[in-house]
Amino acid sequence: MTMERFSATYLVETPLPVEQAAAILVGEQSSGTFVAVPGESDALKERFSARLEKISALETVSEPALPGARSSGRGVPGRYQRAEVVVSWPVENVGANLPTLVSTVQGNLYELSQFSGLKLLDLELPPSFLSHFRGPQFGVAGCRRLTGVQNRPLIGTIVKPSIGLTPKQTAELVKILVEAGIDFIKDDELMANPPHSPFAERLDAVMRVVNAHADRTGKKVMYAFNISDEVEPMQRHYEKVVAAGGTCAMISLNSVGLAGTKKICDLGALAIHGHRNGWGALNRHPLLGIEFPAYQKIWRLAGVDQLHVNGIANKFWESDDSVVRSIRACLNPSPGGTPLMPVVSSGQWGGQAPETYRRTGTIDLLYLAGGGILAHPDGPAAGVRSLQKWWEAAVEGLTLEQAAAKYPELGSSLEKFGKKA
Amino acid sequence: MTMERFSATYLVETPLPVEQAAAILVGEQSSGTFVAVPGESDALKERFSARLEKISALETVSEPALPGARSSGRGVPGRYQRAEVVVSWPVENVGANLPTLVSTVQGNLYELSQFSGLKLLDLELPPSFLSHFRGPQFGVAGCRRLTGVQNRPLIGTIVKPSIGLTPKQTAELVKILVEAGIDFIKDDELMANPPHSPFAERLDAVMRVVNAHADRTGKKVMYAFNISDEVEPMQRHYEKVVAAGGTCAMISLNSVGLAGTKKICDLGALAIHGHRNGWGALNRHPLLGIEFPAYQKIWRLAGVDQLHVNGIANKFWESDDSVVRSIRACLNPSPGGTPLMPVVSSGQWGGQAPETYRRTGTIDLLYLAGGGILAHPDGPAAGVRSLQKWWEAAVEGLTLEQAAAKYPELGSSLEKFGKKA
Repeated sequence: MTMERFSATYLVETPLPVEQAAAILVGEQSSGTFVAVPGESDALKERFSARLEKISALETVSEPALPGARSSGRGVPGRYQRAEVVVSWPVENVGANLPTLVSTVQGNLYELSQFSGLKLLDLELPPSFLSHFRGPQFGVAGCRRLTGVQNRPLIGTIVKPSIGLTPKQTAELVKILVEAGIDFIKDDELMANPPHSPFAERLDAVMRVVNAHADRTGKKVMYAFNISDEVEPMQRHYEKVVAAGGTCAMISLNSVGLAGTKKICDLGALAIHGHRNGWGALNRHPLLGIEFPAYQKIWRLAGVDQLHVNGIANKFWESDDSVVRSIRACLNPSPGGTPLMPVVSSGQWGGQAPETYRRTGTIDLLYLAGGGILAHPDGPAAGVRSLQKWWEAAVEGLTLEQAAAKYPELGSSLEKFGKKA
Repeated sequence: MTMERFSATYLVETPLPVEQAAAILVGEQSSGTFVAVPGESDALKERFSARLEKISALETVSEPALPGARSSGRGVPGRYQRAEVVVSWPVENVGANLPTLVSTVQGNLYELSQFSGLKLLDLELPPSFLSHFRGPQFGVAGCRRLTGVQNRPLIGTIVKPSIGLTPKQTAELVKILVEAGIDFIKDDELMANPPHSPFAERLDAVMRVVNAHADRTGKKVMYAFNISDEVEPMQRHYEKVVAAGGTCAMISLNSVGLAGTKKICDLGALAIHGHRNGWGALNRHPLLGIEFPAYQKIWRLAGVDQLHVNGIANKFWESDDSVVRSIRACLNPSPGGTPLMPVVSSGQWGGQAPETYRRTGTIDLLYLAGGGILAHPDGPAAGVRSLQKWWEAAVEGLTLEQAAAKYPELGSSLEKFGKKA
């Protein structure tokens, strides 16, 4: 039986011939010292070495993308070659250890002076590795089941102002939102467990409203309580959410980290809303860090159910193409068989629905609008209805203008939030 | 009583007037929506808002450092202003919550299209925040106490090859190293708990050697066992290290994350060796991510005792200036009162000792050499002795040539490893 291997695809830039630079990458991540040492036998190398699987040359450039690259006299002066490089490792190098997988495919690679750019694009993980990880307990189907929403995106919002509301004020806002017909509400990532809104008090105040509404209408709104913290308070707050009848907890993935997040996901009773704040530091440079397809696989294995993907025509820097790729990555059932629920947010008001649907062809989204609901000219209920209606129009294939002509109730949101090109 | 505030210093680049861009930054991290919403009262804003404390203008450039910045018609076309910006928040926004501190000072900021560059340079944390965190249990003084090494750097090495040795082979190598007089040995970050070297077996095999040597000589070598993994196996392996008489555990900080690392540090029985693999992704671009002075404060509050800082004339991309700054940051007793032990590594063979001492004036270092010990022409014991001797020479203020002239035993390492400029 052949030992299975996992592989990583990188976008690299190097002042060296790509083959030479790639050989350094392979060595760093499987033997890694600057002189030969005893014990490094050929048989050991053969069994455990990383392996260069493929080089696809791309363009050359005259300026390095990142500082600190050295060609040591090899390569062509002032010429930097870009390439896609695929490297593989035996699964037995890592075992069933997610943090060590991350150290293996990223680790010191970003520091190598043989590269003037290196970005992890994607990961391929074989069944013998994947089988150790349960993955999302809920994902798209589970989040639909928990909210009772079918045949359209889940419509949600974020409690604003991000910080400063008391539990009572938060609950008052939640009351307005649940009565407006919303499916999902979340804490802001800045709001976790501060003195002016202790977690347990906020939970109780919010769940009283959510549960009363569910008793009355049969609709249980999903509230993502931000439990981001150290491990023990996260566990304690998680159990409180479960006990209060809640259905979701939110974690700031990059701030909490992989081990802490997995520990919470493993509890398995709540859908986990994965917030990716901090993501820009890992992704904004085109030749440094990690791309979303690789990133979402790591968090999917940790067990996250919902993951932020930004949105079309967002208020941040990210391109629509990148957002579309991220949505597709989440909805791919592989690895693990359970699609993640993509969380679309950032400056969304409903008018982005036609383009979002045109580009992705999916309604399996958690679509978050902030001001788009609470600042709707005809009130929050009209805001929620207009978001649902924008999505109906989107699925019908209507443009903004066609939608507003067919559904007069969309006119006021188009007028207030629509930006002219 | 005035509510205490914490603050963050950023290096930014923006196509807008800096004041306008900074106002967006401040808003994103304390109210954060694109239209005014109900409940955002002036009193609430006054109490919880982030505050722009200072702008120090730097140079202007004609090309943006990062893609995706938009000036929306304001600013001067083709002109990007750089500046240092200080922003503060009330401690009560965060409470005693380290991950939420990280989300507050980093979070979505890297994604703002109002910036073409943003790097977190440093953090200032007031006593009312710091008092919640114990910080390092060992640090410099504790690591000296555990190893019995005074008046010189701790000399250490990394088990190589990184991956592939069985527990028995690892223990054989450890035997050579402890008999050579080494102070510290660590697992590679690629070696955690793989099938061919199960953690418990490796621990037992290594600690038999370490304990036997301690019984015989009174010198207990510190071995940093790489426990990086999910929370439960980390705890289990940590307890095994304690039970076996070990003194140190290693964590790949960026791969394990803040919550998992803090949970382990809180156990308080072992010195924690903080490996920063993955750091390049967070730091290599001059206008993206985080600088080491801020980074080490976060991990110091988590309780890490030793932290990697690269080394002078290292094999990676990092400049000597940056390495020197990192060593200084670790050795600053503030915040928390306990200096971190800087871990110097990457291509070190002893000959960097004079320049390291000249630039930092300290011997409070854990100085790791790989091939520099095991591939020493006269054997590992000579390798360890030469490292100690290089440091003696460094403290005496000798140059490489003066040192080799005064101490003939340094000649062979100079000849084998010394690079001519």
